[in-house]
Amino acid sequence: MAKFSPVLWRSSQSRGRSEAGSGAMATVFGGVEGGGTHSKAVLVAQDGRILAETVGPSTNHWLVGVDKCIETINLMVQRAKVEAGLEPNTPLRMLGMSLSGGEQKEAIDKLIAHMKGRFPNLSQHYFITTDAVGAMATASDRGGVVLISGTGSNCKLMNPDGSQIGCGGWGHMMGDEGSAFWIAHVAVKSVFDAKDKLATPPHDVTYVRKAMEEYFAVSDLMGMLPHLYTNFQKCRFAGFCRKLAEGAEAGDALCRYVFSQAGRVLAKHVRAVLPAAQEPLLSGDLGLPILCVGSVWKSWELLKPSFVQVLDETAASQELKGRFHSYSLLSLKRSSAVGAASLGAQSLGALLKMDYAANVDVFYRHSCENKR
Amino acid sequence: MAKFSPVLWRSSQSRGRSEAGSGAMATVFGGVEGGGTHSKAVLVAQDGRILAETVGPSTNHWLVGVDKCIETINLMVQRAKVEAGLEPNTPLRMLGMSLSGGEQKEAIDKLIAHMKGRFPNLSQHYFITTDAVGAMATASDRGGVVLISGTGSNCKLMNPDGSQIGCGGWGHMMGDEGSAFWIAHVAVKSVFDAKDKLATPPHDVTYVRKAMEEYFAVSDLMGMLPHLYTNFQKCRFAGFCRKLAEGAEAGDALCRYVFSQAGRVLAKHVRAVLPAAQEPLLSGDLGLPILCVGSVWKSWELLKPSFVQVLDETAASQELKGRFHSYSLLSLKRSSAVGAASLGAQSLGALLKMDYAANVDVFYRHSCENKR
Repeated sequence: MAKFSPVLWRSSQSRGRSEAGSGAMATVFGGVEGGGTHSKAVLVAQDGRILAETVGPSTNHWLVGVDKCIETINLMVQRAKVEAGLEPNTPLRMLGMSLSGGEQKEAIDKLIAHMKGRFPNLSQHYFITTDAVGAMATASDRGGVVLISGTGSNCKLMNPDGSQIGCGGWGHMMGDEGSAFWIAHVAVKSVFDAKDKLATPPHDVTYVRKAMEEYFAVSDLMGMLPHLYTNFQKCRFAGFCRKLAEGAEAGDALCRYVFSQAGRVLAKHVRAVLPAAQEPLLSGDLGLPILCVGSVWKSWELLKPSFVQVLDETAASQELKGRFHSYSLLSLKRSSAVGAASLGAQSLGALLKMDYAANVDVFYRHSCENKR
Repeated sequence: MAKFSPVLWRSSQSRGRSEAGSGAMATVFGGVEGGGTHSKAVLVAQDGRILAETVGPSTNHWLVGVDKCIETINLMVQRAKVEAGLEPNTPLRMLGMSLSGGEQKEAIDKLIAHMKGRFPNLSQHYFITTDAVGAMATASDRGGVVLISGTGSNCKLMNPDGSQIGCGGWGHMMGDEGSAFWIAHVAVKSVFDAKDKLATPPHDVTYVRKAMEEYFAVSDLMGMLPHLYTNFQKCRFAGFCRKLAEGAEAGDALCRYVFSQAGRVLAKHVRAVLPAAQEPLLSGDLGLPILCVGSVWKSWELLKPSFVQVLDETAASQELKGRFHSYSLLSLKRSSAVGAASLGAQSLGALLKMDYAANVDVFYRHSCENKR
């Protein structure tokens, strides 16, 4: 582990917003939000001020490999150090990372070991958690449900006592239901099945087929094979979801159908974790707080009818014995990198000042029908 | 293209069964059967005699890459040349290849160009077709349905006039329904979903979970991630199907269920291509001949009830107007590499003598109920 040496401000490059530390020694915490398509890095002072924020491509090590993952993280943090007027070769006190794909202990240990070896001046200490945990730490210290639908999907319920229960988050080979990848896949699969006559598509595939040919620059189904195998890139494939959202907004029935399926299965993730919720999570003013993370939530209006229906049915079911009667959907106004930095600090016994209320928006509230 | 030079027999190494050609000039045709897990190569004389047969690993270029694919093919053919007592550096007249994943023209052209460049002494001419077409060419010159369920799956109807219509064959990212990979995936997914409470499994998952932990040498679901991503090998994953077949034979309900689902969806592939069948395919003594290729057919008894049910329903449906009333399932007694060699020869205007009746077994015959 690198020897402790406080980050030095480079006064020549210091900016207005970091003037408090200008020319002085300071302790700076880094945070990373690592997604399947985009990533972000922030530098945070202990009083909670954001000193710099940078962006980069995917840092999901399952998708891009360990080398590319840590190179991207290093680059984002180095650029953030420069942006904040810090000496790039002076290690941060701690780098907290909230990574999609950051759940498996062995893989995390490997990632940290590689970082220490290759980039000894990046940070003194490292902390890795999942994208869900980092997002929740940005929004609240009281727990709730995090429901991620970005390139991939995942759901995690975090109780006030710190206990957690998850559903999903296994990636595109074993789940990712309701994610951008999954939505794109369901749509493309319906074109294949219609062509093959293997299954009757729920609606006419003309719009989706044309949009697919355009997005992937192919003239037939054969042309899709390189996109699925040799040159497969999950985030590129998932990007087709945006075209489907456009189609749905323009009224295409198949596009609307795939988003409706996504809303349904996302709500099923919440249903799966709900029985483990402790009372305070269900009885607050907001009802169950569900923190919605990822770009698919931009299409909330398309997900809404089926999402609401499944949770209404859940509320009415025997299993929850009337404990679940309302919920709110929240979105983050700040990157989960901030929460990751906060958790990293906590792991060293330090506390970053967090203004949770300023970090979230409540974009939907619902009282379930068929209350028991 | 390499200049024509007939294959020379090396008399010192010639064997009994190739004595006719011993010490003389001869024209030898090669054939390759390329699967997702195993491959075979044969050398065939124009009179139809098999001169040599060798085996190798997967040659599906989508799975193993072009380099590995052509290296494996070269190695198998060179070993076959030696086995047949031929000079390894003298090119075959033609190498016909029946490859899973051999459908896309661009990819095929690239494969052949690479072979010519790297292995100029392998063969004078090359011909590539799909695994389905190669299998059919081994069984018959009158057409029928080929229904592949090995590592992957595919279905192709070939009419007596040479017209073809297909269903499936898009690989594990966009289909492979009913294949060993798919069966393994459905079973593993049911373990994930049960653990996550995302969906209720159709039957108890205990046997499948234990078999999965044993086969993949993992102690929890997290341990499966490397098998699905970083170290994913389709044929290794698909190999889990064998354990499920054992479970099904021992009576495990979930194992029996996944095979039943496989039987159902395999029959749906036949249903999809049936409307294109020309009269002679449906009215022969065997009814519709369905050539079943791939190791999943070893579990026919497990597939049978649902497979038969779907085709009985198909026969009773309006769409086929009573044209479809019976079918037979056939299996190959010889490698599709023989058919590939035959098609390769045909593409040069040569004819290999084929004894189709000796190449197939009829393992099931069925007259559909609810005939119209």
